Amino acid sequence: MAESLRVTVWNEFRHERNNDEVAKIYPEGIHATLGAALKEGGFDVRTATLDEPEHGLTEEILGSTDVLLWWGHIAHDEVSDETVERVHERVLGGMGLIVLHSGHFSKIFKKLMGTTCDLKWRHDDTERLWVVAPGHPIAEGIGEYIELEEEMYGEHFDVPQPDELVFVSWFGGGEVFRSGLCYRRGSGRIFYFRPGHEENPSYHNPDVLRVIENAARWAAPTKGAAPVYGNTEPLG
Amino acid sequence: MAESLRVTVWNEFRHERNNDEVAKIYPEGIHATLGAALKEGGFDVRTATLDEPEHGLTEEILGSTDVLLWWGHIAHDEVSDETVERVHERVLGGMGLIVLHSGHFSKIFKKLMGTTCDLKWRHDDTERLWVVAPGHPIAEGIGEYIELEEEMYGEHFDVPQPDELVFVSWFGGGEVFRSGLCYRRGSGRIFYFRPGHEENPSYHNPDVLRVIENAARWAAPTKGAAPVYGNTEPLG
Amino acid sequence: MAESLRVTVWNEFRHERNNDEVAKIYPEGIHATLGAALKEGGFDVRTATLDEPEHGLTEEILGSTDVLLWWGHIAHDEVSDETVERVHERVLGGMGLIVLHSGHFSKIFKKLMGTTCDLKWRHDDTERLWVVAPGHPIAEGIGEYIELEEEMYGEHFDVPQPDELVFVSWFGGGEVFRSGLCYRRGSGRIFYFRPGHEENPSYHNPDVLRVIENAARWAAPTKGAAPVYGNTEPLG
Amino acid sequence: MAESLRVTVWNEFRHERNNDEVAKIYPEGIHATLGAALKEGGFDVRTATLDEPEHGLTEEILGSTDVLLWWGHIAHDEVSDETVERVHERVLGGMGLIVLHSGHFSKIFKKLMGTTCDLKWRHDDTERLWVVAPGHPIAEGIGEYIELEEEMYGEHFDVPQPDELVFVSWFGGGEVFRSGLCYRRGSGRIFYFRPGHEENPSYHNPDVLRVIENAARWAAPTKGAAPVYGNTEPLG
Repeated sequence: MAESLRVTVWNEFRHERNNDEVAKIYPEGIHATLGAALKEGGFDVRTATLDEPEHGLTEEILGSTDVLLWWGHIAHDEVSDETVERVHERVLGGMGLIVLHSGHFSKIFKKLMGTTCDLKWRHDDTERLWVVAPGHPIAEGIGEYIELEEEMYGEHFDVPQPDELVFVSWFGGGEVFRSGLCYRRGSGRIFYFRPGHEENPSYHNPDVLRVIENAARWAAPTKGAAPVYGNTEPLG
Repeated sequence: MAESLRVTVWNEFRHERNNDEVAKIYPEGIHATLGAALKEGGFDVRTATLDEPEHGLTEEILGSTDVLLWWGHIAHDEVSDETVERVHERVLGGMGLIVLHSGHFSKIFKKLMGTTCDLKWRHDDTERLWVVAPGHPIAEGIGEYIELEEEMYGEHFDVPQPDELVFVSWFGGGEVFRSGLCYRRGSGRIFYFRPGHEENPSYHNPDVLRVIENAARWAAPTKGAAPVYGNTEPLG
Repeated sequence: MAESLRVTVWNEFRHERNNDEVAKIYPEGIHATLGAALKEGGFDVRTATLDEPEHGLTEEILGSTDVLLWWGHIAHDEVSDETVERVHERVLGGMGLIVLHSGHFSKIFKKLMGTTCDLKWRHDDTERLWVVAPGHPIAEGIGEYIELEEEMYGEHFDVPQPDELVFVSWFGGGEVFRSGLCYRRGSGRIFYFRPGHEENPSYHNPDVLRVIENAARWAAPTKGAAPVYGNTEPLG
Repeated sequence: MAESLRVTVWNEFRHERNNDEVAKIYPEGIHATLGAALKEGGFDVRTATLDEPEHGLTEEILGSTDVLLWWGHIAHDEVSDETVERVHERVLGGMGLIVLHSGHFSKIFKKLMGTTCDLKWRHDDTERLWVVAPGHPIAEGIGEYIELEEEMYGEHFDVPQPDELVFVSWFGGGEVFRSGLCYRRGSGRIFYFRPGHEENPSYHNPDVLRVIENAARWAAPTKGAAPVYGNTEPLG
């Protein structure tokens, strides 16, 4: 069933083309690395990037996407408001959305959260993502924690209290961070997952990839009645 | 995947043997009706009842149960504390639990909730269960609401605020009730679902059965690391 | 302490000037009626309306407001984006916000929720608001339910799952509605309260006023450290 | 208003009498230290300890207690089930309960949570409690974090997902812990607060005391209608 889920991996795809260090880690771009892993996991995968027409997120593509992954960092403002509206509408209509790392400051995430989504940060730290919801499907197959060399993100993370909190991160420099967060908005599900600084090879880590695959399955749309809005007659 | 889920349907099985009206609706018992529907839905089904040795819930049975359904009403006190402890431990260890209707006053539900689980009630009313979480997997395939002739349960329902609220019921007599409630406890998932008074044929209703099947899939255990407790060395 | 809370009551103030029936119920406007009640309750009250310069919500007014009440209906689009931004920033900074009735479609509420905030509606029904969180400070002094003649709002209400659900409404025509909802966003607290159709005298009802006063106390800002964001040094 | 809140500080009071090191930190017992601070904060304070008749928690005492603090560690099993039942009933009836540190394993906390309340632990670490809900009244007057020399408690903490998460702790040894947790049960409010190992002077720390005072105000009972349960007539 999950095998036919249609995932679109969206990536800003700038660092990989402008920075040799990043290009060594993700020669074809973060989207290619994530896409390959998801394909191997049985998903039906497409990728889309900022510099394609309509950022690669046309009505048609979005209309045939079950779950959208989002990685962006230095060019959030270049994403057009039209595209953000389109993605927003699709999420409320049931499409899953997985927002990765610096995507916390993307237009679409801020619009869905209603807050600034601000946080603390610092390069070059040790992160340990502890599972705080051990039976949650997004933590399936993961041990007690995942350890990474990563950029630090620290609290306060200015987002709404999540519907479910799955991971909390410890950082060597002394900070903590709510790093795996589940939200429902409209008929759609959203998962924010912290790791993935472009200068660290986190998307080659099998546990990180496992979490992303789990999240894609968890965020898949549910076939149900579309809600009816507006003026209605009494049911009696 | 879901096809091999092992469901055990537990039923008090007293009304059906002592009351002709109930016997007409559920001649083999509520467990048989629910079990047949789940079997058809692709689950691996067993049943267990109060008057079997150990109430049919031996270590072995529970150890090979993914999701347990619970229907009880007039004999909650006859369920042994040993059995309740065993079920409790299994739920915290990851087994799903679906508590139906008058099971709100069962020992196991009260123990898991930590509250009285009390409510208002009255026979012979019209219930309309509205979906308030349209993208939730437990509401998959259901319309905007389910309408039933049922016993009324009214607020205040003395349970913890659920992690997710899926259904809210309207009753003709003027009451409302939070009627589909999701909880996580330990590594296990619990769903409380309101309908199922023994004198009403609700477990023959296809939408009610669909919700129960959806809930069984939702509540299935997740394979993950067992949490480690107790004294531990620093990770460094 | 609560006695010195500074409340600003914002009202669109159009229906009362254009519709004789509404003017009979609220001759000086909804803001005047709510303001008078809050004044009597010991609050330091100001009012502001759409057609004042900057809609009456200048930097100075907002900067000296602890809790803002919001009633709007037919002119949501006339509220300037600048004002919405200013209110949004203040809420995230700690100012309380109480959104009333048709304010569900206001720009500020939709921006804070991140969803469409859509719903069903119909005039002329009986509403019964049941308390589902009996110990909550917003329900202080209220009985089991409040009964009103009101416009109907029905589920699905397209908002995020609230942090706390205080009231659920029953309507004579067969619908239910989550009608008292608590949210935290940034350092601010938001309460949505359903009643208040302009053609019904609900803001003369003592229980409705009591809830609004309770909510104003609950939503008052908390003096705490302002979160620090951005690049930071390790704590060691 | 808050000035007349009646707080009862319950303490096991064994370590202080059996261990010289602990006695140096809390010569009159933890209850005396906490009680003195709360008295200074304007509360009406009484104390009660394990070895008093009925553990000092008679019907009369509990009946006139607004908020109960609970510190226990090595003698949880010596608390009688009768007393636990009495406290449980009072909490559901509206009395606030603040459970401190090793009280996580107390009978009353486990009964209210419905889970094992298990966790990891280790002596002698550095704890940094980060505020993750900056506008919450329990964090009033606190900076971004509180730093202490303390016993470590680590995830997974086997409790239900809290209604509100206020603090998350970082530990030098590499663990994290959800360390300030809000729950509603029945009409009562419960706050779990992590610090307070008997060999560390945490209850002399002004920020820790401030949190406990804030929590006592937050947990105070709300005067509202007592819920009505049982068989009821239709409202029409």
